[in-house]
Amino acid sequence: MKKKKKKVNAAILIIGNEILSGRTQDKNVAFISNWLNLNCGISVSEVRIIPDVEKIIVKNIRLLSKDFNYVFTTGGIGPTHDDITAQSIAKAFKIKYGYHKEAYKILEKYYGKEKFNDGRKKMAKMPVKAKLIYNPSSAAPGFITKNVFSLPGVPTILNSMIENCKKYLLRGLKVYSSTINLFTVESNISKQLGLIQDKYKKFVDIGSYPFFRLGKIGVSIVSRSTSKTKLNSVNKDLIKVIKSKKIKILKI
Amino acid sequence: MKKKKKKVNAAILIIGNEILSGRTQDKNVAFISNWLNLNCGISVSEVRIIPDVEKIIVKNIRLLSKDFNYVFTTGGIGPTHDDITAQSIAKAFKIKYGYHKEAYKILEKYYGKEKFNDGRKKMAKMPVKAKLIYNPSSAAPGFITKNVFSLPGVPTILNSMIENCKKYLLRGLKVYSSTINLFTVESNISKQLGLIQDKYKKFVDIGSYPFFRLGKIGVSIVSRSTSKTKLNSVNKDLIKVIKSKKIKILKI
Repeated sequence: MKKKKKKVNAAILIIGNEILSGRTQDKNVAFISNWLNLNCGISVSEVRIIPDVEKIIVKNIRLLSKDFNYVFTTGGIGPTHDDITAQSIAKAFKIKYGYHKEAYKILEKYYGKEKFNDGRKKMAKMPVKAKLIYNPSSAAPGFITKNVFSLPGVPTILNSMIENCKKYLLRGLKVYSSTINLFTVESNISKQLGLIQDKYKKFVDIGSYPFFRLGKIGVSIVSRSTSKTKLNSVNKDLIKVIKSKKIKILKI
Repeated sequence: MKKKKKKVNAAILIIGNEILSGRTQDKNVAFISNWLNLNCGISVSEVRIIPDVEKIIVKNIRLLSKDFNYVFTTGGIGPTHDDITAQSIAKAFKIKYGYHKEAYKILEKYYGKEKFNDGRKKMAKMPVKAKLIYNPSSAAPGFITKNVFSLPGVPTILNSMIENCKKYLLRGLKVYSSTINLFTVESNISKQLGLIQDKYKKFVDIGSYPFFRLGKIGVSIVSRSTSKTKLNSVNKDLIKVIKSKKIKILKI
């Protein structure tokens, strides 16, 4: 474990017509992304939202699992006909799909033999050799197939399970971020921001995000880096510009 | 205009590190998707969230504009160094990027010649022959390049501009949806739901989404179809199952 840490990345694949149609507001992207960075130093590099269609799930699983260190899927692992994530992942990797022994036992114990009906049994069907992600909320486990972590779509349940992914994940370089909120317009500082970004090109990402508060226009300058030292240097340069332009900094 | 309407689809490309990192909760997907379906009968078939990196934007624009009738991009059209959507789209289509005459005039008039600095001028730079999407909130227009509609990332501004896209969009078949909320668990009805879905396979999509309310577990059954008649038939079948199982329907 004395090896130097590298950048580790991930993609999120949101599977669900209800998110695509706009009926349901996704909350899992922000949660997973923040959790991964804070707890494992893993950066989310791409997110896709796709419908509950096997062919499309298969294609995206193959692509993303090749291009990124990890893939996190959400949705489609419940008991109904539209829950086809597990079978699609098995198909994507051409591996055996069926009852997972441990998952079956967990669910049978949770529901009791009498109430363990076909719908509930379906939640034990997955790639048979998958590692399980235990579910303290509602028993039905998530699962890990190669580098793909499959979690449910309901945010409260997903949130309760995510800690159980940790032991399977490589630690990467944590990305630190620092935010300065200003009462000004972007175009007032865009030139200087560009120069500072150029100076620290390889080490720090500087983003500029307008906001509205109390009827005033403001800008959040967000700097992100794996190096705290470089982040401090950027902040010093930013403060210099801000002072020279007599812009008010907001404390939030 | 008497031609029979067809299905028209779209992809949404969210461009922005702040969404990927989880710092900012996206609200544009749900808004655009609902608006497109309700106003134009256009279904969103895929969403991608990608970083502010030219190479990645170029690749995704090329791919999505080929695979879908329309692409909506959000973010990256402001005055700062990290706003690179316009130049990336020009590159993707190998077309000329520079000052757009009308956009330049609009912005110059809005800010006044003296305050029209380089940052603000940058917002007039885009594919030079793009059609403009007027912006009643903050002047800086969006733009249309081939089948790609570029909008800003700030939700309030995007929302104020979307109506101005309407005249450029083909009308497709509106997707109607109908929701029945039940106090039951998914696995209690999953078998029957599957049978009803099979019966209406080609005409109606039935989704099942668990929820928690007042400490109780419930399920929303959402049916979606371009045919109101088929939707009614599905609902009749659903009600039969619900009554036979003595499940309580919630009025919301």
